[in-house]
Order: sequence, then structure tokens, then C-alpha cells
Amino acid sequence: MKFSISKNELYAALQIVGHAISSTSPQPSLRGIKIDAENDQLILTGSNADVSIQKTLEKNEDNQLNIMEEGSILIEFRYLNDIVRKIDSDFILVEIIDGSLTKFSGNSAVFKINGMVARDYPIIDFSKPATFIKMNTQQLAEIIEQTTFATSTKEQKPVLTGVNFKLSDNMLNCTATDSYRLAKKTIALDFEGEFNITIPSKSLNDVKSTMLSDTNEEIEIAMNNKKAQFIIKDMIFQTRLLDGVYPETDRLIPKEFKYTLNMNKDDLIHAIDRTIFIKNDNMIINRLQCSSDEVVLTNKSQEIGESIENLVASFNGDPLDISFSGTYVLEAIRNLKGNNLVISFTGEMKPFILKTTDDDTVLQLVLPVRTYN
Amino acid sequence: MKFSISKNELYAALQIVGHAISSTSPQPSLRGIKIDAENDQLILTGSNADVSIQKTLEKNEDNQLNIMEEGSILIEFRYLNDIVRKIDSDFILVEIIDGSLTKFSGNSAVFKINGMVARDYPIIDFSKPATFIKMNTQQLAEIIEQTTFATSTKEQKPVLTGVNFKLSDNMLNCTATDSYRLAKKTIALDFEGEFNITIPSKSLNDVKSTMLSDTNEEIEIAMNNKKAQFIIKDMIFQTRLLDGVYPETDRLIPKEFKYTLNMNKDDLIHAIDRTIFIKNDNMIINRLQCSSDEVVLTNKSQEIGESIENLVASFNGDPLDISFSGTYVLEAIRNLKGNNLVISFTGEMKPFILKTTDDDTVLQLVLPVRTYN
Repeated sequence: MKFSISKNELYAALQIVGHAISSTSPQPSLRGIKIDAENDQLILTGSNADVSIQKTLEKNEDNQLNIMEEGSILIEFRYLNDIVRKIDSDFILVEIIDGSLTKFSGNSAVFKINGMVARDYPIIDFSKPATFIKMNTQQLAEIIEQTTFATSTKEQKPVLTGVNFKLSDNMLNCTATDSYRLAKKTIALDFEGEFNITIPSKSLNDVKSTMLSDTNEEIEIAMNNKKAQFIIKDMIFQTRLLDGVYPETDRLIPKEFKYTLNMNKDDLIHAIDRTIFIKNDNMIINRLQCSSDEVVLTNKSQEIGESIENLVASFNGDPLDISFSGTYVLEAIRNLKGNNLVISFTGEMKPFILKTTDDDTVLQLVLPVRTYN
Repeated sequence: MKFSISKNELYAALQIVGHAISSTSPQPSLRGIKIDAENDQLILTGSNADVSIQKTLEKNEDNQLNIMEEGSILIEFRYLNDIVRKIDSDFILVEIIDGSLTKFSGNSAVFKINGMVARDYPIIDFSKPATFIKMNTQQLAEIIEQTTFATSTKEQKPVLTGVNFKLSDNMLNCTATDSYRLAKKTIALDFEGEFNITIPSKSLNDVKSTMLSDTNEEIEIAMNNKKAQFIIKDMIFQTRLLDGVYPETDRLIPKEFKYTLNMNKDDLIHAIDRTIFIKNDNMIINRLQCSSDEVVLTNKSQEIGESIENLVASFNGDPLDISFSGTYVLEAIRNLKGNNLVISFTGEMKPFILKTTDDDTVLQLVLPVRTYN
């Protein structure tokens, strides 16, 4: 194997596939990036047990890829990344010089690095599943931002650590819940068919940081009952799915409400944020006392003290005294679009719904907590 | 106690005194900031076992300090900092409402925080020692940058964890060594007298981040045999000194040299920096092979591989083959002023000296390491 390529283009590609690498992986080959040079293409692959990323660099004017000899090698990501980032030239020459010993040449700097043979790398099936949908990257980013925070971090019910993507009747429902709160995003999709898969929350956040930042283009999501693929042009992000039946959540969502609170979303974010240093057993518990005269948000801790804040809000219904996790409400509303927040309650110990008037596609539900004020 | 003050001015002052606070201090009172309101002044004090910082806010147009009732209180720094940062108004009203319960009022946000009584705070003597010198803040920043990295991090010889400030014959020598390298900064000072004190490295770095960033003004350094004070206007930074006699280091510094290497400082920084991923037992060992024909920098590890780089340099003397800690050389030269680096050697196992031609005030010494290439 022998090729030369633009340092900057190679470095940019490494930042993508490197997202899959854990430098402390117990399996040495998974600490590496596999480089395949063939057919005027450089294919970079990075993987961990759950996620695999592949980026193909086709020869073009920007990268000036020149493959002098085809071949494959596996190089530990952190060394490769350091060499490419710091090399003293605009182009880097990479060649296998002996077995798996690989030479990287810049201007006057030369590195001879012990690689690993590419056949030691696990065989990863990047074939594209038959079922796939298309959406805009911004839309996918929004789904991820508005749901993943609500997934469970506990491993007791593994399926709850992911976001459920369920498509039927041309509607895609993306649901996340940890049993104490629920986030549900619904979008219309022009797709004939059905699926019901649960994607690990961590994989979705990796998709976002790897592929979705500041882009506005089409992304394909392909899936079968084992894996999901996110595909943009020459880039494939592949993740395993979570096993298990995702619970039916629709019956948890109240349909009728006795009380409604309307207020500026940012005002509530700032009001709760001001109180988050007041903790009880490391939890932030806000109490909301509502009447038609005033809406008061408080937070009290025996040890630290208390906060009291009169909110500018309009409340409809009988007086209501309800307590909730400030963290959950903050996370639920932070990524809602628009500033007109509507909170709908059915009772002091019943789940409540948070929405904005500008965005009908997403619903946030939070369970209250019992307090002894 | 009752006063109001500009939120931004109070927040800026808290960032200074907060530098002394460890939020995990086992002594609860040291997690707090002492606030003394008296004589149209607000005095803020923060301290840990080693360092104490005091900042006085005199009433002025910017801070619009208004003391309605004199008094003192002690408030946990992290709560105070959060409240002042996030309060929903430009001015904040602070008042003791019951014992040590203290009320902070913004626009609609109100906090009632459990303070601690000020008399529980340790008595800190901020009186100014009789011996003091003056210098420019930039000059002090340079002393700190060019020496502290060379102090020891091991506690076996506590005195080596600090920088020795020794003044005699109008020359101030600031010396740091961990026995494997040495940094020495010498500046002329118009001061009749002598002193010999050792200031903890950590305190000096705290002085730098607290008082010296982006300023160009006069700073006083006052000292006795117990403490040193750094004083700018209304701000006092006080640190304990290290006990013990600082070793005589002048005899370690070679005076005659057999070999000289001249090269661009940044070139060497980049060349070493490119190799720092190649580690042996977690150490970065660079080998330098010099002759009048070529100067080659290498770094080799059985496990990872090797780097080879021809340096653009001019070398005088018989051929020399020397190995050293790349980390030590990097740290030694990074803060030298100017780009014309001169390295002077006396032998392959003798300490060598690194200087730039533009700056005669500082000398960096590094001991070679033995390798078995």
C-alpha cells in the first residue's frame, strides 16, 4: 500500500471515523482505523462494539489522492490522528514498508509506526438494509435534540436507553422515556410501510455530532431488525439496535386538562436555572403555586436556603400546587421551538404536558414529585 | 448588614477572591466568602490554608455601592457566585434578615440563603510586611511563566515545590528546579536590601491567573519570613512561604561549553511536539545526533514505532549524541522570548543550557537522560 493525500482532507475524514473509536478499547484492533486503498479510493473505517463509521475518499481536486499501490493497514487512531494533525507538509505520503510497519512522510518529518494487519480487523457488514427513509439533516438533528435527553440511563430496562422510531400510516413517532418523563416527536413522512425500531440514545447523539453539525442536506436512514444506517454521500454511520419490545406509551399521555399555564419559555428557563444550586439529595425540586392572581416558583432546601420568584404568567383553573424536577422541565423545554409555552395539567400528582404554540410536532411530558412542604 | 451594588461589579470581584476557594474544603467557613460592609466599603475575603485574597470595593459610579447598614456575613462561595451571576436585575440588594439568614433580591427573584456568622471565619492578618519591592505586572507574569514549570511536584523536598526569590546587590534571582532541570530568571531591581524567600509554585500560578492577565501596571511584592503579599490597588493576594533552606544551584550551571547548536526555537518546538505521542514508560525521550553535516532528532519506542526528523540547524563541535526528556525541553523553551535558540552542551551526560539571543535574563538547564539505543 502506498498513497499520498492532502493532510487537511485526511485529517477531516479522521475526525469523522474517529468518533467511533474508544482509545481504551480492550480489543486492540478496535483502537485502530482501517485504511483500504483501492480503485482510486481511500476507505477509512472506525468501530466500537455498538457503532461503526465508514468514510470513503474518492480522488478529487481537493484531496489530490494518489494511490501508487493498493493495500490495507490498521493504525491506532490516536497515533494516526497526531501524525496527520502535526505533519510539516500539506500532503502526506503513507506507505507500508515492512509487514505492518507503515511510514508517514511529510516535509522533513518521517514516522515509522507499527500498524496491525488489516485482516485482524473484525468483518463489518456495511451493506445497506432494504428499508430506508429520507429526511433533512436539520430535521433529524431536531428529533435527536428533542428526545434523547429523556431516555433512561439505567440498564435495568435496556430498551428504555434508546429512542423508539415507529412508522405507520405515514407518521413517524420518535419516543423516549425513562418512566418519569416522556418526549415524543411526530413527523409526517411520505413512505409506504411500517417499522418499529429502538436506536441507542448514545448512537443518536454520536450521529448528531458526527454528521449533523451545521449541515442542511439529505440523510438516508436505512434499517432492518438488527441495525440502522445513517447515510450522507460518502459517509455511513451504522449502529446496532436495542432488543426488546418498546412499551406502549400513548395511554400515559393525558388527553384532557383542568389547568393551563401560559408563559414565556425563556423566562421559565431562566427562573429555574437561577435555582439549580439549591439541591435536595442532589435533586432540584421546584414548587409551582398557581392561581389566577399569581404564579410563584420556589425551591427550598433545609441546608442551603430558598428561592422565591413571581413569574409573569397567565393561569386558568382552580388554584394548583405542584412540584417537579427542575432538571426535567429544563431539559424538556430547552429544545422546544418558539417562546410561547403552554403547560397543561390534570392534577397535582398527574403527569403534565409542555408544548409551545409554534411547534405541534413535539410533546414533552413530566411526572410531578411528591413533596412535604 | 444591608447594601446594594452593581451585579456586574460584584460578580467581577467575586471571580478574584473566589480563586482562593476550594469548594471541597473540609473547613466549612473556608468554602465561604466573607463580606464586610463598613465605611462605604465592601471588603470581600476568600482563603484556603495557603492563600488568602482580599478585594475592597470602594463606593464609586460604576459599582453604585450603597451601604444602608454596616455588618458582616459569610456566604458559601458557589451559592453566592451562582446567585450574583444569574440574578434578574442590574443591581442586587443584600441584607441579613435573621441571624445569618441573608436575603438577595433582584427584580422578581429573591433568595434567602443560610449564611455563616462572620466571627466563625479565621482571623487573617493582611497587614503589609515592611520589606517590599515594585515591578510591572508583565515582568512578574514572565518570571512566573519562565520558572514555575520547573519546580518539583514531589513533596519529599518541599522547598523545591516553590520558586526561590533571592535579592542581593540589586539583582533579583528567581530559581526553580526539580533536580532534573533548572530555570533561572535574573532581573535588575533598584532596591537596597536583601531577601531570600521561596514562594509555592501553585501560589505564583494563582497570582498570575488572578491578578496578571492582560494588565500592565505596577504590582508590589511585600514579604517577611512567613508570608508574601502581591498588591495591586484594592487587591491583596497573600501566600504562605515554603520553609527550608533553598539549595545553592549556581555550581550546577556549567560555565564552559564544548558544543553549540543554533536553530529556530519554533522549529524545535514543532519537531518535538510532533513526536510526543511516542512514549517509553510514559516518558518522551528525544535523541539528538549532531554533527557539522546534519542534526537529526529521533524518538523511538519498541511498541509504537519511531520518528526521524532532519532539523535545520547549525552545530559547532565534535559529533554529539545526546538524549533528553522532550517534555522538559519543550517546557523550557516555550516561554523564552525571541526565536534564535542557542543550546550549549558540555558533554553527553552533562547538563545543557537553552537560551535565546534576544533575552539574557533567563537561563534554562536540562539534564540529559541515559538511553540504550
